[in-house]
Amino acid sequence: MSQQEMSCGLEYTIAPDLQGCLTEAFHANYSFIVTPVVHPRFRRHHGADGNRVAGFTRSDMILSPQDWTSRLVGRLSHYLNVDSPCAEVRQRQEDCLNEELSYCKGLGLPAIMIALQGKDNHNLARILLSYFESSHHPSVIWTQVPMQCSRTRRQANTEDQDEDEDSFNEPWSWWSKFHQRLQWDKRIGVILEMSADLPPHEIFQRWLGEPVKAVIVPTSIFQNNKKGYPVLSRAHQQALTSLVQRDAQVVVRGARRATVEHYLQYLQRVWARRPNPNDDPMMSYARGWEDYLQTPLQPLADNLDTHTYNVFEKDPIKYDQYQKAITQALTDLKRKREGDSAVEQSPPKDISAVMERLQIGQGDQKPEEKDKPITVMVLGAGRGPLVRATLNAADITGVKVKVIAVEKNPCAVVVLAAQAREVWRGRDVAVVAGDMRHLKLSPKADIIVSELLGSWGDNELSPECLDGAAGLLKSDGVSIPCCYTSYVAPISSARLWAAARVAAVGPANQKEKNHETLWVVYMQNKHDIAETKPLFTFDHPAKPVRDYEGQEVTDHQGLPKTDNRRQATITWTVEQDNVMHGFGGYFDCTLYGGEMISIVPATHSVGMISWFPVFIPIKTPIRVTKGETISATFWRCVDSHRVWYEWLVEVGGRCTDLHNCNGKSSEMLL
Amino acid sequence: MSQQEMSCGLEYTIAPDLQGCLTEAFHANYSFIVTPVVHPRFRRHHGADGNRVAGFTRSDMILSPQDWTSRLVGRLSHYLNVDSPCAEVRQRQEDCLNEELSYCKGLGLPAIMIALQGKDNHNLARILLSYFESSHHPSVIWTQVPMQCSRTRRQANTEDQDEDEDSFNEPWSWWSKFHQRLQWDKRIGVILEMSADLPPHEIFQRWLGEPVKAVIVPTSIFQNNKKGYPVLSRAHQQALTSLVQRDAQVVVRGARRATVEHYLQYLQRVWARRPNPNDDPMMSYARGWEDYLQTPLQPLADNLDTHTYNVFEKDPIKYDQYQKAITQALTDLKRKREGDSAVEQSPPKDISAVMERLQIGQGDQKPEEKDKPITVMVLGAGRGPLVRATLNAADITGVKVKVIAVEKNPCAVVVLAAQAREVWRGRDVAVVAGDMRHLKLSPKADIIVSELLGSWGDNELSPECLDGAAGLLKSDGVSIPCCYTSYVAPISSARLWAAARVAAVGPANQKEKNHETLWVVYMQNKHDIAETKPLFTFDHPAKPVRDYEGQEVTDHQGLPKTDNRRQATITWTVEQDNVMHGFGGYFDCTLYGGEMISIVPATHSVGMISWFPVFIPIKTPIRVTKGETISATFWRCVDSHRVWYEWLVEVGGRCTDLHNCNGKSSEMLL
Repeated sequence: MSQQEMSCGLEYTIAPDLQGCLTEAFHANYSFIVTPVVHPRFRRHHGADGNRVAGFTRSDMILSPQDWTSRLVGRLSHYLNVDSPCAEVRQRQEDCLNEELSYCKGLGLPAIMIALQGKDNHNLARILLSYFESSHHPSVIWTQVPMQCSRTRRQANTEDQDEDEDSFNEPWSWWSKFHQRLQWDKRIGVILEMSADLPPHEIFQRWLGEPVKAVIVPTSIFQNNKKGYPVLSRAHQQALTSLVQRDAQVVVRGARRATVEHYLQYLQRVWARRPNPNDDPMMSYARGWEDYLQTPLQPLADNLDTHTYNVFEKDPIKYDQYQKAITQALTDLKRKREGDSAVEQSPPKDISAVMERLQIGQGDQKPEEKDKPITVMVLGAGRGPLVRATLNAADITGVKVKVIAVEKNPCAVVVLAAQAREVWRGRDVAVVAGDMRHLKLSPKADIIVSELLGSWGDNELSPECLDGAAGLLKSDGVSIPCCYTSYVAPISSARLWAAARVAAVGPANQKEKNHETLWVVYMQNKHDIAETKPLFTFDHPAKPVRDYEGQEVTDHQGLPKTDNRRQATITWTVEQDNVMHGFGGYFDCTLYGGEMISIVPATHSVGMISWFPVFIPIKTPIRVTKGETISATFWRCVDSHRVWYEWLVEVGGRCTDLHNCNGKSSEMLL
Repeated sequence: MSQQEMSCGLEYTIAPDLQGCLTEAFHANYSFIVTPVVHPRFRRHHGADGNRVAGFTRSDMILSPQDWTSRLVGRLSHYLNVDSPCAEVRQRQEDCLNEELSYCKGLGLPAIMIALQGKDNHNLARILLSYFESSHHPSVIWTQVPMQCSRTRRQANTEDQDEDEDSFNEPWSWWSKFHQRLQWDKRIGVILEMSADLPPHEIFQRWLGEPVKAVIVPTSIFQNNKKGYPVLSRAHQQALTSLVQRDAQVVVRGARRATVEHYLQYLQRVWARRPNPNDDPMMSYARGWEDYLQTPLQPLADNLDTHTYNVFEKDPIKYDQYQKAITQALTDLKRKREGDSAVEQSPPKDISAVMERLQIGQGDQKPEEKDKPITVMVLGAGRGPLVRATLNAADITGVKVKVIAVEKNPCAVVVLAAQAREVWRGRDVAVVAGDMRHLKLSPKADIIVSELLGSWGDNELSPECLDGAAGLLKSDGVSIPCCYTSYVAPISSARLWAAARVAAVGPANQKEKNHETLWVVYMQNKHDIAETKPLFTFDHPAKPVRDYEGQEVTDHQGLPKTDNRRQATITWTVEQDNVMHGFGGYFDCTLYGGEMISIVPATHSVGMISWFPVFIPIKTPIRVTKGETISATFWRCVDSHRVWYEWLVEVGGRCTDLHNCNGKSSEMLL
């Protein structure tokens, strides 16, 4: 039966001509769909003819054992319905399915293809889960799903828009529930069968968050262009390109309406149309890091190594922005001082202004305020990029600056000191080794410059460091950055969620911790369920805490006490059925005046590569329905020696556990 | 402030007079609510007067350290609102709450009382979870919740029935979500504040599934009876009794409208009205086993010990039922034989009837069918209770029986043999040691009697044992039992679920397994979400499997092959909002004719104590809403050396994981 199917059609991956260029295609690393799995049951029924693979007899194929275990995809018999309502049919077909699975196991195929025919897949999922549980090297499962359910489409006789959407929504829902039942296992991929009608944009986008391994393009949806070559409509071509960009393979299937080579040539043109990483610094930088989870740095607790400095200093945008911001701040300060000296002659308006001006001068000799150099402290100077930016800014503005570079990492201090001696010779640059939170320096700074932000803004403890260093800044001093905000968006990404689950490195209970921690990751295989919204904002200098009577509270050093704990609840409306696996986390930051840096998708500083976003998982993915409200609460908690986040999500009446209670799974050490 | 409350009211537990009978009450094991927690903050504000506990100064109280750590309940300040929408208020009150919690920790109080004022308790739950995480010996938390939300009731001006229900539903929902946020921790209890209006029956019943530690009865809902004593209305009294039956303490609170002693006397009468365990064999037998989880027996893989036999043989009902069933079967068989010998003279109607009759006689001498003894095999005879039942039945019916007692447990065989020698001397009783599945005995049995059922029917592998022993039974023989069915009902029981979670005995990943296994438990603190429904049915002798052509399949011994795999999906409609933690599992069984045994609640064989039900947990409790459909699928899976169950639940679009995939967490060994 399946042999006949084969002889009248074709079913190859992007490499089209199995007979001719098999070896070539193999070298090009294509894989092949074998149909059907050459199963003893078929041999029994079909005799020697059953012993065929993809339409040619096995003797035609010179397949090394390695090819069998890396290039062939087994296709399970599509007619097997292990979810039949009839118990006898179900049991028998279950036995057949298990027979085919163990034959695939015996052949050592790297992947097995199955097709979902409807929403009832409980038993199929159960059998496959058992297969994973009981196999040492289970094959990957490729789940074939149509883009559109033709049954639903046929039923929708009317022009009803909603029913039409249903026909596209349904197969996604089959797949999503099937994937859930297989616990979002990363060994389960999806093969999308392209339909003649394409779904609305949003519904199609949702597929981009799924692990699409291949897309099946029926020959029937190709059109002939003027020259008679098979081509796809613009919409199909765009859809195909966006899937291929995410590394989906292409399978052409159906009646042979054109020469096989023409399909191949067309697909190769589509392939070539993918954006060139060299055109985008982020893309070329992040190549190979797609969806790869990293634990966030803890630059306060740990000292960075030279490789990390190398990477960060290469950012083509970040230090430009800093330099612009410092230039702006120096200009403003210069203007202000000139104004101040003009005012100096006139009597002060009230006593507090006098007091303030006296305080500004604290520790200075202060004969000629205007001519004194502006003190710029670079806190966390690393190997000096911000010192360079400051000196550049001073040159641009013609302002005399005294730079004090504070750094706690002894290795970086050595580099800084060497530069001060040699590169910055003749400039007023002092290097101070130590933790900015525990130093007392004189003179106090007019400007503090720091780059302590993590991928989620405050998550590398910038607020605590800068508040701890508040005593180094004059009372009207400027902090660059002066303000930053973290952002979150609820996302769907089985891939990231499953990657976090298996990232376990340590004791068995690590797995639970993996879903209670932040991951730095260049997210690709994900879909935003709703827009990105601001979460926590920090200002510098920070506003001091007030007590019950409204008085500002000070600490033992007399510095204003600040409170960097935060709690915020954010809500989103769900636009289409989806599954939420966690959040994407970003930040933006005002350095000074109008100078910003941002990794928020909508406002991302073009070309800035220093930060990948964070993925904040939730322990149990939540299925969300169109129209529902996602309500997420985040806490930033602080105690004497650490900072951590806690979070929970509520959708409808359902609520996740509280994540990372008491910082049990992840924390940042002070 | 709280002192004033105290002086005009009273707030004691069931022991009323703190001043007078403190010691006495302590001896009687009552606990006391201390209000407020004597906190330094209060001392500061109120001076020496703050140093009062429950309305009398500390100097009045001779409290041993042990009393402080076992008898006092600390009440946290009710005005603290750590979920205030105002960030400043929230942060300050959070600091206060933490101060009070650590003071309670310092005092070593066994329990702390807090009050839920509304639905927003995210932050409160978070703080308490942190408290549990960070404390070595955390106090138990008693959560005070009104039975009716007075705010909602006031808003419901109309006579709208639904809104009225809402006012009762809401506080349950506050509590339930709060409890969920605390991960259904068993250290969280509820204190129910009785309202003047009582909720509808079903809503009240739902509270019985919650861990109600105490019930607060305001003095305002007492009425004076003719003699002027304070009494409760019949409805209140019934509600109170049902809570007290589940070990809830009683707190009388409010203005002192009668002598304290009168309240106490009344409550003692209520207390006395609880059913007497001595009136109910199950209740007296199960005392102390309430909600205590046990792993099911595996009598096939393990040999039972003498204690277990002792317990089971004490059942006053089970063996009576067996005896009745055997009596009935002997009677029927006798009648049939007499009929048969009458028919013997007439020529057989067709060849198959002849063949069958020849088969029946297989291995017998068969001169006078009618006078031959009836062969009764007791399979799994244990220490002989079913042999006794058979001999009794033979005496009753006057039928001559040959009893063959088969038992695999060598210890039990010794006891059986001794009884055959001494007690059953002169009766035709043969003892055979061995596994019923591997024996060949002659003559074949007319009747097989067995008692291999577990709490969930087939879960001790009765189907596999009896099918394995099918060769011992004549082709028209009778099996007692002839049919059994397992039953399930979705239940809410945070207590059982939490108990399963902490039942971990072994490696760290055991916890997950605990929610993928059956637990035998005398369930008390639970609430049925919907009715109990039948699941899997097994008949004996079993129907043989048929192949593709409809032929019966036989195994290598020529016995019909049976298939004891099962799959069934059951659906229920949710009647009111609830949280599903798993299933209650039961069975009923037809022994022979009309003789049944059952542990299904609606048809429970009165006085039968041999089986507690099973609790089948789900890994993550599911919140279910009125009108939703719960759909549960269960599989009974069989391979060559074991049997196991798998299950999953779907509510709305949400689906649990598949539980116990491939029997990874629990299995029954063949």
